[in-house]
Amino acid sequence: MRILFIGDIVGSPGRLAIEENIVKLKEKYHPHIIIANGENAAGGRGINEKIVKQFFQWGINVITLGNHTWDQKAIFDFIDDYKNLIRPANFPEGTPGNGYTMIHFNNFKLAVINLQGRTYLPPLECPFKTVDMLIEKIKKETVNIIVDFHAEATSEKQALAWYLDGRVSAVIGTHTHVQTGDERILPNGTAYITDVGMVGPYDGILGMKKEAVIDKFLTQLPNRFEVDKSSKWQLNSVIIDINLVTGKAEKIERIRIDPDHPLW
Amino acid sequence: MRILFIGDIVGSPGRLAIEENIVKLKEKYHPHIIIANGENAAGGRGINEKIVKQFFQWGINVITLGNHTWDQKAIFDFIDDYKNLIRPANFPEGTPGNGYTMIHFNNFKLAVINLQGRTYLPPLECPFKTVDMLIEKIKKETVNIIVDFHAEATSEKQALAWYLDGRVSAVIGTHTHVQTGDERILPNGTAYITDVGMVGPYDGILGMKKEAVIDKFLTQLPNRFEVDKSSKWQLNSVIIDINLVTGKAEKIERIRIDPDHPLW
Amino acid sequence: MRILFIGDIVGSPGRLAIEENIVKLKEKYHPHIIIANGENAAGGRGINEKIVKQFFQWGINVITLGNHTWDQKAIFDFIDDYKNLIRPANFPEGTPGNGYTMIHFNNFKLAVINLQGRTYLPPLECPFKTVDMLIEKIKKETVNIIVDFHAEATSEKQALAWYLDGRVSAVIGTHTHVQTGDERILPNGTAYITDVGMVGPYDGILGMKKEAVIDKFLTQLPNRFEVDKSSKWQLNSVIIDINLVTGKAEKIERIRIDPDHPLW
Amino acid sequence: MRILFIGDIVGSPGRLAIEENIVKLKEKYHPHIIIANGENAAGGRGINEKIVKQFFQWGINVITLGNHTWDQKAIFDFIDDYKNLIRPANFPEGTPGNGYTMIHFNNFKLAVINLQGRTYLPPLECPFKTVDMLIEKIKKETVNIIVDFHAEATSEKQALAWYLDGRVSAVIGTHTHVQTGDERILPNGTAYITDVGMVGPYDGILGMKKEAVIDKFLTQLPNRFEVDKSSKWQLNSVIIDINLVTGKAEKIERIRIDPDHPLW
Ligand SMILES: [Fe+2]
Ligand SMILES: [Fe+2]
Ligand SMILES: [Fe+2]
Ligand SMILES: [Fe+2]
Ligand SMILES: [Fe+2]
Ligand SMILES: [Fe+2]
Ligand SMILES: [Fe+2]
Ligand SMILES: [Fe+2]
Repeated sequence: MRILFIGDIVGSPGRLAIEENIVKLKEKYHPHIIIANGENAAGGRGINEKIVKQFFQWGINVITLGNHTWDQKAIFDFIDDYKNLIRPANFPEGTPGNGYTMIHFNNFKLAVINLQGRTYLPPLECPFKTVDMLIEKIKKETVNIIVDFHAEATSEKQALAWYLDGRVSAVIGTHTHVQTGDERILPNGTAYITDVGMVGPYDGILGMKKEAVIDKFLTQLPNRFEVDKSSKWQLNSVIIDINLVTGKAEKIERIRIDPDHPLW
Repeated sequence: MRILFIGDIVGSPGRLAIEENIVKLKEKYHPHIIIANGENAAGGRGINEKIVKQFFQWGINVITLGNHTWDQKAIFDFIDDYKNLIRPANFPEGTPGNGYTMIHFNNFKLAVINLQGRTYLPPLECPFKTVDMLIEKIKKETVNIIVDFHAEATSEKQALAWYLDGRVSAVIGTHTHVQTGDERILPNGTAYITDVGMVGPYDGILGMKKEAVIDKFLTQLPNRFEVDKSSKWQLNSVIIDINLVTGKAEKIERIRIDPDHPLW
Repeated sequence: MRILFIGDIVGSPGRLAIEENIVKLKEKYHPHIIIANGENAAGGRGINEKIVKQFFQWGINVITLGNHTWDQKAIFDFIDDYKNLIRPANFPEGTPGNGYTMIHFNNFKLAVINLQGRTYLPPLECPFKTVDMLIEKIKKETVNIIVDFHAEATSEKQALAWYLDGRVSAVIGTHTHVQTGDERILPNGTAYITDVGMVGPYDGILGMKKEAVIDKFLTQLPNRFEVDKSSKWQLNSVIIDINLVTGKAEKIERIRIDPDHPLW
Repeated sequence: MRILFIGDIVGSPGRLAIEENIVKLKEKYHPHIIIANGENAAGGRGINEKIVKQFFQWGINVITLGNHTWDQKAIFDFIDDYKNLIRPANFPEGTPGNGYTMIHFNNFKLAVINLQGRTYLPPLECPFKTVDMLIEKIKKETVNIIVDFHAEATSEKQALAWYLDGRVSAVIGTHTHVQTGDERILPNGTAYITDVGMVGPYDGILGMKKEAVIDKFLTQLPNRFEVDKSSKWQLNSVIIDINLVTGKAEKIERIRIDPDHPLW
């Protein structure tokens, strides 16, 4: 089974990049399932229902989120309506929405878990223990599990990947908006990449207009960051091939598309 | 002019990886100058004089450092003895050692600047203003400037790169120990990569034994992290080609060598 | 010379507390100069021009600020119009407003310096070095210097106080909104208190409605904090007596007024 | 019932202060139970078994701890041997030691709970939910509950106090080493103080030699902090009176003893 995992989609340039490329990506890579992180899809901050519908319509099967999950207040109204729109599972008990979902493919099931790191991020429940509990529950139904670990620190991401090696099919990092070049299959069969990178402006800073971000670092004064709509887009993602019987990853391949690296 | 920039060398496995590969790397890539980050060279924490000498002997021309600069107390005794051993330039005035160095190549000069970020790291002087002052001084002598920006946050690294685009030959990120796949030449001629990645154990966590790091995340109890000496090594670096007349970068190419990606 | 130093005034309950008590405080303590921290005066976030005028009209001589200085965007329009409205001096060069002011009293001068800490707060310039430079400049005109050190960590506050002992008349901490009971005169004549405390709601959390703050800690979900307007007020401040000839502090006395501790 | 709660005892000066004053404090205040925070008792970092025994011998009934609990490695060997030596209850399940204890007084029981905050501190379990669970369990045995909330941020401390108002007898803050002057009985009968302050050197910085701490702020270079053994001591604590039948606090009174504030 082939999965296309798409990193944080940022604002309208990110959505445009998906719209323009999703068919081509399907043609070139033939993924069976598409997962995308949507935490920055609405103007860089959160996601709205219109975009959720659009993503599903384009063929994205599961939308994961992260620390920006709640930026658009309306999400509280619709997050429970979409089974395949998931937020980090280690938010405290009682948080709206779900932390994982199960999707069907032929006679198989694939679980997608979303987790958030705690290093340089708010003190959610322990992602290591949360994922232990979820795997315990999920493994009765399937051995095929993809984890979107939305985290900042490389140490925490590598630690979770090694912790889960052999227990999940893949640990895919998101949040830093920069693709890392360390994709690999760990010894016990878990595919790993520290960060899949973002989809959005090629010339901004993490997708935002660079002038405002630079100014913030220089002046330490407050500044409104806005999505950079003037530059061309970049699209970062990975392809993961899983053996559905064993749940082991067989391949992980980075995709980087930008003006310097065209798709074809 | 071709520069080989080698990321954070971690402990004895990292040093071994350099020793075993430096000749091969020279044969394959023909770099004129070699720069390496040595902040983790001594047991993962700082550097000692013996290693400094070894590095220079192997043909490394400039050693840069970072937040681990002062981990080995002895560094205060020898840092001022090695012109080409530099520490982040934005430590406060009066700090031992230098923040940049100038090396000669044929009739040209190349300046190497070391800077440290402040996001999730201690409040040094502003790296943006420090580099402005250094460039002002250096540009009287040369247009060829390489910046090792030792920083955690992708936003701060991208911000500095865009801030310096056209003013320096390259901004090369270090510190996260994970190579990023976003190498590019910015529009005004500055080569950039968010992180060049580390040189050290392939199976540890940032070079440290994974069991202890995982245990720390699980228990929140103190734990002594040690370099993972049991696993094979990985070696991450980049090649940068600079036009010595204009100071513009012409190429930046990632090098990733590990058991899954052999050199030849 | 007697100075009344009033801590962070929070929103309309804080302003009301000042309005109701300022005359009584003057009657009881006979201060010659009144200094107040106004960083939370407008709805808990920043200050506006109307409030600035009101404060000066009530007899406050100097208004200091802190990390909330820029919360009301309009401050950029008027901060340079009020000599005695000061913001932390260690914002980078070029920041609007001034970091200290000099006021006249009989034939004497009193300098008031505002500084911000860097522990758990943004990386401004070093407050220790900034204050060194300011003292160097100010001491040509006066030995009477009051420092409002707006900082979070008790260690940084005590460190600055000891660093300045004998060089300034008083180091008065603000920002935590809780008065500390450690007021003292340090051996070389500098009056010190870690935090003077706030002026505002008695039953909120740092002045904000407690329900929202508690909810944030429980759920980790975003929440709009609003000034608690329902509860009675508390007013925290200190009296400092300075020998104008030597600049040494002779007394520092805490004032705590709240429903459990009435003024008279 | 009267409780004497003594703040973080720092190193040998702190222990000496207790030794010299404990009898006098008993004579003056007649406490029935003495609780003391011992996280800095051994050279400023953690506690050892000899000191634990000494504290109990001097009449301290319960020793609480905090973020420095594990600084002395030997604690893992003896923490489970002393029922009344407790560490923060919100360390993850499986952590050695206990997070609360129950002591007997006449026909009554008093529970003491130790909790650690998460703002600017490691991501332990949620202290709010942990205390909910503990109260649920404890309230079957007693209504008399004292909470030592070892935390940095004033907001988190006030939030927990308001959250527990009416459910515990007192929430006593520790960790900042500076006594606050905001002691009060909350509307539903819970005594509260943001921080009880420390016991140790009067002239150090949080108990450490001030030169090294100042130097760290100035240079950002590593520095070994040592307990300041040259200065006189200070002793901070509070007296809490509880109605054993209702569990409500009737009084909370601060005690500050130092060279400027002698005991008698
Ligand atoms: Fe994120
Ligand atoms: Fe994101
Ligand atoms: Fe490093
Ligand atoms: Fe580093
Ligand atoms: Fe404030
Ligand atoms: Fe503040
Ligand atoms: Fe402590
Ligand atoms: Fe502590």
